[in-house]
Amino acid sequence: MHEIDAPYLLMLGDVQDVSYAKTAYGLAQWAPERCKAQWRFPNCGVDLGLPDMTPEIAAEIGIKTVVIGVAPPGGGLSEEWQRQLGIAAQNGLDIASGLHTKLTSVDDLVAAAAKHGTRLIDVRVPPANLPVGSGRKRTGKRLLTVGTDCAVGKKYTALAITRGLRERNVPVDFRATGQTGILITGAGTPIDAVVSDFLSGAAEALSPDAAIDHWDVIEGQGSLYNPSFAGVTVGLLHGSQPDAIVLCHEIGRDLILDTDSYPVPDLAEAIDYYLEVGRLTNPNIRCVGVCVNSSALGGNQRDTAIREIQENLGLPCVDPLIDGVEPIVNALLDK
Amino acid sequence: MHEIDAPYLLMLGDVQDVSYAKTAYGLAQWAPERCKAQWRFPNCGVDLGLPDMTPEIAAEIGIKTVVIGVAPPGGGLSEEWQRQLGIAAQNGLDIASGLHTKLTSVDDLVAAAAKHGTRLIDVRVPPANLPVGSGRKRTGKRLLTVGTDCAVGKKYTALAITRGLRERNVPVDFRATGQTGILITGAGTPIDAVVSDFLSGAAEALSPDAAIDHWDVIEGQGSLYNPSFAGVTVGLLHGSQPDAIVLCHEIGRDLILDTDSYPVPDLAEAIDYYLEVGRLTNPNIRCVGVCVNSSALGGNQRDTAIREIQENLGLPCVDPLIDGVEPIVNALLDK
Repeated sequence: MHEIDAPYLLMLGDVQDVSYAKTAYGLAQWAPERCKAQWRFPNCGVDLGLPDMTPEIAAEIGIKTVVIGVAPPGGGLSEEWQRQLGIAAQNGLDIASGLHTKLTSVDDLVAAAAKHGTRLIDVRVPPANLPVGSGRKRTGKRLLTVGTDCAVGKKYTALAITRGLRERNVPVDFRATGQTGILITGAGTPIDAVVSDFLSGAAEALSPDAAIDHWDVIEGQGSLYNPSFAGVTVGLLHGSQPDAIVLCHEIGRDLILDTDSYPVPDLAEAIDYYLEVGRLTNPNIRCVGVCVNSSALGGNQRDTAIREIQENLGLPCVDPLIDGVEPIVNALLDK
Repeated sequence: MHEIDAPYLLMLGDVQDVSYAKTAYGLAQWAPERCKAQWRFPNCGVDLGLPDMTPEIAAEIGIKTVVIGVAPPGGGLSEEWQRQLGIAAQNGLDIASGLHTKLTSVDDLVAAAAKHGTRLIDVRVPPANLPVGSGRKRTGKRLLTVGTDCAVGKKYTALAITRGLRERNVPVDFRATGQTGILITGAGTPIDAVVSDFLSGAAEALSPDAAIDHWDVIEGQGSLYNPSFAGVTVGLLHGSQPDAIVLCHEIGRDLILDTDSYPVPDLAEAIDYYLEVGRLTNPNIRCVGVCVNSSALGGNQRDTAIREIQENLGLPCVDPLIDGVEPIVNALLDK
């Protein structure tokens, strides 16, 4: 599992447009306590409203890690970025990145980090020495977000439920399985980058034994209905051995992403299928709610659609961006 | 996909015991046309009955590849082996290995291969540039062997069915997904070593578009009922989009391997589950038979057990080592 030390200096570099800075905005929203400052080059077009700081100053006030909060077109690291990051390493800062181009592929940066004893953390690269899964039942409670497809709000839902539980003083950890989640929480495993043989083992290691009343809220990946990624979903589901699942869904999406013939499933059918597959490692698995992305609908249509889902399934249904997730947290804690 | 050129020189080295030479025996049994000679060091205790040959002579008569046919205790490459393999490379032979220790981790061997233009093929290492799965329906027909658990005869069954189809002049390819299968057939992808994101993409690439009456017989991996490896099984199942499955099972095994609480499933239930999961990428998937390992039973008991399975399921059931797979090939071609 990756571990990234806070506080962070969020590097925004020289990007011009907020659409390249989604990671930074996600961090500022979900991990404000970790984000102490922003690092903008002279011609940067984005502003998170954090104090502007150079790596030199950041290191002086105790910041630990530069987190690259932007994804420039192409996902690369320009020579200017490499030079600037080298300066950060010289000042004793770790560097964490979710870019396609690996920090560890830049020789000068590797040399600078080695010389100054700092770490280069590529969060897309899985940690070494992952175990094979065992299926052994672990202590503590777990919730996994699952989806009718990819990109339906599984990370957002998991983060919102984590926050909701924390507000009620329930002991809880968000368990990240993708790069943005790992940067937000400072720990996690990029599950889809793990070698298949170690898939459920990596998921098992991600949510270890815990106190009986502790919840791990695990960020789901893929979908049982996505022909490209259902294997990832199954490995994560089995290794997570969740007590509870929340189904995420985008209203109005008819076809699985990047396919032209795979239908998005009916919600009741999808819940049954997830529970059937999940029962292998946790016979007591149950579904505690549905989270939808309802952005395709207007106000009245939206309310009607959500009410219908709720009545059909007998489960709470919310659009977490609009309604929050309180009804789902209630359902989770009811039992 | 790996591609290994025949004919082979099977390297038996200095191993003393046949139990270390399972790979070589498998090759001699299933790919006799590829295995032209054996290479034994002076103190070798194993004999496949093939002509003895040094790499120098082998290269002269047109042999292309040295295949390491033994797994010495620990899976390593001794200094003597490294030296001998270097001589093979100097003589222009490719080297293929399924050992844990990678050929490409031995610097002298890498240098010798580069100098003499030969290839080092570690069949446990997946090929580069695998695609992400698409779910697109491919032409041709496919059979996948599946199991109630790991290590229940899925490779043997796939090889036997391939041979059975070939004997009837049905156009057929065995598609290997594990190291021994790859060495036997000279091509394939070690599916459990593939990064999870590319699991079904690798399976799709393994059995490409083919003539309408052509069968790919694909070696299964893992089991939907194994909590450590079901993700691999699902990715392979979806990417293979099989028209037919054959369920493999070991009679008398009650618990999933390496677990103490996961039961081996009922056969009818297992077939239903595989068909349910497989239907995502091939709605016409059907089960054409059951292959059992009946070695735990004596003659009469064995016959009774197999007859019962056959009657309960309404499907042909055989122990392929004892009965062959003709009834299953019949069922496959009947439709």
